[in-house]
Amino acid sequence: MKAARFHARKDIRIEEIPEPELRPGAVAIDVAWCGICGSDLHEYLEGPIFTPAPGHPHVLSGEEAPVVMGHEFSGTVTALGEGVDDLTIGESVVVEPYFVCGECPQCREGNYNLCVKMGFIGLAGGGGGLSEKVVVDRRWVHPVGDISLDQAALIEPLSVGHHAVVLSGAKAGDVAVVGGAGPIGLLTAAVLKGMGVITVMTELSGARKAKALSTGVADHVVDPSQQDVKAFVDELTAGRGADVAFECASVDAVLDTMLDVVKPRGTVVNVSIWGKRASVDMLKIVLKEIALVGSIAYANDHPATIWLVQEGKVDLAPFITGRIALDDLIGEGLDTLINRNETAVKILVHP
Amino acid sequence: MKAARFHARKDIRIEEIPEPELRPGAVAIDVAWCGICGSDLHEYLEGPIFTPAPGHPHVLSGEEAPVVMGHEFSGTVTALGEGVDDLTIGESVVVEPYFVCGECPQCREGNYNLCVKMGFIGLAGGGGGLSEKVVVDRRWVHPVGDISLDQAALIEPLSVGHHAVVLSGAKAGDVAVVGGAGPIGLLTAAVLKGMGVITVMTELSGARKAKALSTGVADHVVDPSQQDVKAFVDELTAGRGADVAFECASVDAVLDTMLDVVKPRGTVVNVSIWGKRASVDMLKIVLKEIALVGSIAYANDHPATIWLVQEGKVDLAPFITGRIALDDLIGEGLDTLINRNETAVKILVHP
Repeated sequence: MKAARFHARKDIRIEEIPEPELRPGAVAIDVAWCGICGSDLHEYLEGPIFTPAPGHPHVLSGEEAPVVMGHEFSGTVTALGEGVDDLTIGESVVVEPYFVCGECPQCREGNYNLCVKMGFIGLAGGGGGLSEKVVVDRRWVHPVGDISLDQAALIEPLSVGHHAVVLSGAKAGDVAVVGGAGPIGLLTAAVLKGMGVITVMTELSGARKAKALSTGVADHVVDPSQQDVKAFVDELTAGRGADVAFECASVDAVLDTMLDVVKPRGTVVNVSIWGKRASVDMLKIVLKEIALVGSIAYANDHPATIWLVQEGKVDLAPFITGRIALDDLIGEGLDTLINRNETAVKILVHP
Repeated sequence: MKAARFHARKDIRIEEIPEPELRPGAVAIDVAWCGICGSDLHEYLEGPIFTPAPGHPHVLSGEEAPVVMGHEFSGTVTALGEGVDDLTIGESVVVEPYFVCGECPQCREGNYNLCVKMGFIGLAGGGGGLSEKVVVDRRWVHPVGDISLDQAALIEPLSVGHHAVVLSGAKAGDVAVVGGAGPIGLLTAAVLKGMGVITVMTELSGARKAKALSTGVADHVVDPSQQDVKAFVDELTAGRGADVAFECASVDAVLDTMLDVVKPRGTVVNVSIWGKRASVDMLKIVLKEIALVGSIAYANDHPATIWLVQEGKVDLAPFITGRIALDDLIGEGLDTLINRNETAVKILVHP
């Protein structure tokens, strides 16, 4: 079958590889669509990061480069391994793409996203969504009912937003500020909006500001170069401040703004991945007793995320900005995101 | 009566002023002992900060400099204002030294330490503990039973530690790391130890390391210049990491260490006041989903703090490193703390 495999930095190849074999407790899936993630770009440009370098096999998958890429994918069940009796051939599913040890304190407490040995299917081995077929342990396969398979490929990044929203403690009627309208900022806002939270997004880029409004996930978009974000939020909340805020840009000024706009005893969730140390005004955290909380990936978030889409509370269609074939992954996929990432939100690949 | 009043930076005067008048709902107190706080030093060296400058009266007290200093004090009830019937003349008390508005969202939710108009008695007006007598509204007066009046003067800074510990969520049997063994670090550790938490303190100064051990508040003291703190905590916790950690030094390297030693999903409470922006490794917060929480002063902490001392779970005697008369406030009090602050923990003033 055809698959995109990471060999080394700037060396992702579309090549023929053997089909994966079904095993007991696992599910065989024909991949329908696979999204390209920011971490795929990072692997391509700066990797190996999450991919295991040659000679350094991942501790759980046992695999090393070359490995199949792609961890945001949907597909159709084609076969069930021994002992799997609660799925149906032909059913639409998505994959929560994890390897975890199941034994460390984090796994035992249900925070398996923080497993000390954690790896991602589609980065650390186990096949991936940028190939025609994949075999995944039953635990990680989530049925999506009648959600279309293209939208279902966005369940994975939507779960990242869901996880951050759960950590924030936001509830219906609250006011949330989301700093940065890139893909993760938009999908975090989508979850908030779907849960009945009033959303304010801050963004400088014209294309992203337009997207925040056209997708319907932002009740308000504020450009900090043109408007005082704190004054806007104070007016919206009668001086109370936002209940929660989300840093989705990994920019000092954005984190400052989130600390400024959140109410005393409010929560600021950091969803972004920082490539350098941040300069933080700790006094803001102290004098308002803010909780600054980190959020990474997802754990136990897929069922609620799928429900939000099934119930129509989140419409994922507007976030799909491109559909390409696997053969065009580099030129029309990775290069587009690298060079014109302000207009593209999510490009889907059909293997 | 005699009182120490802040007039301007480097200008604190011991002078004769009229005695305060008793009013309905208030309590007249003869001050026994008053501690000197780090914020008193900051007012003296860099003020006015919390003290209202001439021409800028505090919004709640209506007072401006000169104002009486001293907010860590104990004393004896000498008279009760109209409507106060639940205290006894001669009873030992401490004061929770606040002005709050009672109307803002924070006050209504019980987080009155975050009141938008908050001021401290002994800094913003209302008299203070560095004077012979003070009159305080009943709400802020806490009976201390048979706690000696000298130790009772340390209830206020101990409440700062108690508040931070409550925000951390620490419970008996947990492991806590406290970064910095200055007065607030030591008193935070004292609360933790009194609650049955295993305490590890990190400190560079020899005098402070000795104090952390001699006071009995630290189960372990680790000097990061001589020992790998993370390795020490990992061994102590079988690789799990500390349940909670406390930044009590306002030093980048200390905050880094607290983020390193705390377990995934653990809480780091920042108790210190930062005079400059911090350089923070946000990735540490994200990849372990740490909650970095600010803590300032206290609210609803005095009863539990007093209980810890009454029950003998915290012994405040070892933290009293000096006793002076009000006339010696500058020379033997402020100057000692400014010049030799590593050996002095708490100097008490007897007005």
